[in-house]
Order: sequence, then structure tokens, then C-alpha cells
Amino acid sequence: MAELRRDPIVGRWIIVDTDHPSQPKDYEYDPHTWKGGACPFCYGNEGMTPPEIDAIREPNTAVNTSGWLNRVVPNKFPALQIEGSLERKGIGIYDMSNGIGAHEVLIDSPYHNKDIPDLLNEEVERMIALYCRRSCDLMKDKRFKYIMLFKNFGAAAGASLEHPHSQIIALPMVPKNVMEEIHGADEYFDYRERCIFCDILRQETQEKERIIMENKYFLSFFPFVSRFPFELWILPKNHAPHFCFMPKEEIPFLASILKDTIGSLRKLFPNMPYNFIIHTSPANGETAAHEGYHWHIEFMPKLTRVAGFEWGTGFYIVPTSPELATKFIREVQN
Amino acid sequence: MAELRRDPIVGRWIIVDTDHPSQPKDYEYDPHTWKGGACPFCYGNEGMTPPEIDAIREPNTAVNTSGWLNRVVPNKFPALQIEGSLERKGIGIYDMSNGIGAHEVLIDSPYHNKDIPDLLNEEVERMIALYCRRSCDLMKDKRFKYIMLFKNFGAAAGASLEHPHSQIIALPMVPKNVMEEIHGADEYFDYRERCIFCDILRQETQEKERIIMENKYFLSFFPFVSRFPFELWILPKNHAPHFCFMPKEEIPFLASILKDTIGSLRKLFPNMPYNFIIHTSPANGETAAHEGYHWHIEFMPKLTRVAGFEWGTGFYIVPTSPELATKFIREVQN
Repeated sequence: MAELRRDPIVGRWIIVDTDHPSQPKDYEYDPHTWKGGACPFCYGNEGMTPPEIDAIREPNTAVNTSGWLNRVVPNKFPALQIEGSLERKGIGIYDMSNGIGAHEVLIDSPYHNKDIPDLLNEEVERMIALYCRRSCDLMKDKRFKYIMLFKNFGAAAGASLEHPHSQIIALPMVPKNVMEEIHGADEYFDYRERCIFCDILRQETQEKERIIMENKYFLSFFPFVSRFPFELWILPKNHAPHFCFMPKEEIPFLASILKDTIGSLRKLFPNMPYNFIIHTSPANGETAAHEGYHWHIEFMPKLTRVAGFEWGTGFYIVPTSPELATKFIREVQN
Repeated sequence: MAELRRDPIVGRWIIVDTDHPSQPKDYEYDPHTWKGGACPFCYGNEGMTPPEIDAIREPNTAVNTSGWLNRVVPNKFPALQIEGSLERKGIGIYDMSNGIGAHEVLIDSPYHNKDIPDLLNEEVERMIALYCRRSCDLMKDKRFKYIMLFKNFGAAAGASLEHPHSQIIALPMVPKNVMEEIHGADEYFDYRERCIFCDILRQETQEKERIIMENKYFLSFFPFVSRFPFELWILPKNHAPHFCFMPKEEIPFLASILKDTIGSLRKLFPNMPYNFIIHTSPANGETAAHEGYHWHIEFMPKLTRVAGFEWGTGFYIVPTSPELATKFIREVQN
């Protein structure tokens, strides 16, 4: 019989298929493929993007020319625009606002064909350091209530360009899903005076059934209430609400666990498309100080298609349990 | 500049791209294609499915043989199982339950190659009458708190078999997304003593900017806060919480608006995969009587892939506004 599991943070139920669990070979996904044509994120094509916002560069190289190691540019087709002030209005029963915000692209490295697991540790560290720098910079703008960092890799995961890149969006309001997670963590904290993410960390470390790897500052694991097969989280061991204020000494540890975790999963699923999202506390205003919140990364390999049932209910059917996923990943880790 | 719009029921924000709106030709979706091989939902193959639960049949035809017009069978690989009693338990901070429920497949018609717009009106009416009959039957089981009816059409929308079919799942708890919608409607109703769906109906009928079609009992329209391009709703004009108690005289009107609305959309997007879900009030127990709730159908053509940003935030980017979608559909309606 299947198992129903309830997310302790937001209350979502999932159905784990324990009768006919899917093996890695059962997933037919669209692998990540490289297209031809001039790439706006490669050396020599800097003129194809809007002027850069930030970059980490080789010494003596000029802005908007080659020689960069990491480069940040505005999204050419931004979902939101940086200029102007936020104006809200109502139309009958509907609320609306103009589209103020920021939408930037962080080019992960100069290499068109290298994703995170193919980079050197120091290259991944640089990428993460720039994630922090851009987040902290955008948090200074009082119009923004939430800074979201995420990466889509592969067309099936929603990437429109092939060259590996991440994105950052600054939003004028805290999105619903984030708010729910924060409310859930706050409620738990108010009642127990403990952080729910710290409790998850403790229980996972004790049970050892779903751990992928760990180091001094981070744990990567398949969560008990995964929504997707092989969904995984990377959780900092030290409690902290904001990603971008991470102590500098933790960055190399995040870089290595991110690189090695994706690398292990890629052994099971070659060229898998994926998404990851950095979940962090809101940026400004009264909703900003959530001491019960604990930043983390949610990583979802794009192995299945989401159907009507999941959309309608928020009730996910998971064909491979996180415990079984752990067995599969341990086989390729050895 | 883009427009931000807020869902008046659940509080979700969406971003409508008004700067570079997508035209129907800009959507590259995977069209629905037919595979070969024996189809378990075709005449003569009744033995390939588990024994039938219900059917509408030609006179003098035997159970589990050909001659049926509509047929209901248990899902061969059910997400949940009908036998047993619900047992909940905790594991540390996690809650779980065994997988009690029902999971049935409703074969829409004997025709492998005909979907709803290709059927006769009376054939669609029969399909809907059977939807109601199965829903009402499952509602009698006190273990079930929610009955969800939905359809996945096409592999890209999550269908695993090609022959057009719908599904019904009976759940031992009210799913999170449904609960949120119900809470939103209840709050609005408590404060204003009016149903929010009735208010939406009034405003849409007045503004006429997003209406696809209407008849005596139903309205189909592109909602102001669509999450997906060309997402549409079918809303009954008479306020009622439960789909399955729909008066018999309304069924032909629902059949014709469903058939014609999908038919119009299919002129814009040939062979489009899609999902629809019937949103209705919970089944049993204290959460059942929601006088402020109003059943309806949410229909989503599967034209885009959902990426990390949407998953992480519940903040959807909509490349074609519902107003523009209305213009496009009116062109093919004439």
C-alpha cells in the first residue's frame, strides 16, 4: 500500500508509491542538449547582452569585454523593471500593481559546456560569492521585499539559453509559497522555541536514511516529504535566516557539497535538466526578521512531467521514495 | 512595463508580460500524438483492465464486454487503495498515514481518436452524467474527505494512455490547494455575505473583456489572474458548492460549453495537450458545508514548461494576458 506523508512546514500531503517504485532507468526525461548559434554568454559576445551590472574579472580587463570569470547582466527580457515607484490599484474585486523589480542573469562561468559539477571548486566558490554579493546589493533597495535566486538548467527545466547561468529576481512583495513556508516555520518556532529546519537536520542526521553527503557546514539529503522523485535539499548546519549573510568561511563548503551532490545525481541521470531555488528570508519591512527561518537550497531534477492532479491539489505522487533514492545514489557514490 | 495581478481567492501574485506578449504561434508545445499497440480502453480489450465499476451500456450487453458507451474501471496502478481503514502515525516530527483512497479511470467514449470536441453533444452529456454519478457514489464513503475529478490529455500533460479518459481520486484528507481556495472563499463570504465566485461572474459579465462564451447556465472565460497562458475557467451561473449535485437540466449546457470552448481553443492550438480539474467542495465531515464555495472547472492547455521560478515562489509569469487571449480566440470563433 502507498504511504501518505505530510510536510511539517506547509502542511502539504504527498503520496509515495511503495508498491511499484520507479527505478532510475524508468524515468524518460528530455536530456539537456546544446544548440548551435552565437551564444550571448560566451567570450567575445559581450555586446549581445545589456551592459554588465557586476563581474569578477581577470586583472586589467575592461568592463563588457572578455576576461571575466563571472558576469552579471540584466535579463534582456526582464519579467520586472527596475525603474519607477510601486503603484498599487484595484479594479473591481481585483488587486494589481505595476511591474517594479529587478531581473538579472548571473553567467556561472565562461565555459559554454561546463556545468557546476564540471567546474573547479574555486570556480563554484566564486559563483556563490557573487550570488551573495548581488543578493546583498539588491536587499538595500527598500522597494524590494524578496530576493529570489534560482537556476534553470536545460530546456526541459525552462532554460531559454544553453550556456549555464543562474537568475536573480527582486520582487516588490513576498510570494505566496515563500510566505507559507515562513508562516509554518514561525508557528513551529513560536510553539516550541526551536527551528523546524534544525529539527529536520537533527532527525535526518540521526536516522541516516536519506542523507546524500555532509561536510563541516552543510548536509545534502532527500527530504522525507519530497514532491518530486530525487528532489533534494542542501541545508546549512548553522541556523541562519538569510542566504546572503553566509559567513565567508562557509562558502567553500557550500561550493563543494553543491558540486559533488549534483555530480552524484548526474551519474544516475546523465545530462539531466534541473532547477534549484535558494529559499531565504524576506528582504525588508516588517516581514523581514524571521528568527525561526533557516535558509536552504531546494534542488529538483526534471525527470517527470507534472499533471493535472498535482496542479489541482498540491497533492504530489512520488514514484520513488526518498529512502530508495538514497540507495540508488549510494551505489554510484562508491 | 509588466503588470502584477493578485488572485482575490488565494492571494497568489502573477506577472503579466505586457511588453513582449506571446502570440499563439510563439508557443512550442508537444502536440498530442497517438501511439500504436493494443489499447486497453478500446472495444474488445475489456479484459486488459481490472473489472468495471460502472458503465453506461447498449441494451443487452454484458458487463466487461464491448457495447459500452462509457466505462469506469479501477486504475491499474492506483495511487491509493480502497481496502482498509485509515491509520495515521508520527515518525519524529513527521506525520504520515497509509494510502487509503480510490483511484478510478472513466473512459470518455469508445473512440480512440475522438476527444471531447469531436464527440456528439449527447456523448459529452453522458460523460458528465457519469462524472456526477461516480462522484456522488464515492461521497457516500465516510473515509473520503475529497473527491477530485480531472483529465490529462496528451503525454505532455501527463497522460500515460492515449485513448481519451478522465480520472477520479477519492482522498482521505482535503488537499492543501483546495483548502486554501475554500478558506479564501469562506473569508470573503463571512465578511461580505457574498460569494467571491458570484462576484467574479458579475464583474466578468460586466467587463466582457475575458469571456469566451456563455449559455443559460455557464460562462467560460480567461481569468484575470491566470497562472498559465490561455488558462480558462468554466463557472456555473447558479451558486452551488458541489459539482456532483448539479441539476440534471444543467448537464446539457455544461456539455455544450465544454465541447465548444475546447473546440475553439483547439483551433488556435491544434492537438494541444491539456489538463482540467473540477474544483468542488469537500465530501464529508466538518469541512463539508462551505456555503461560500462555488464549484467550477479549471482548464489548462499545456503550452509552456514550468520552471524553477514558478515552483519556488508560486509567482507565475504569464506571457499572454487573458485579455489578449480573448482577442485571439474571438478571431477563430468567427
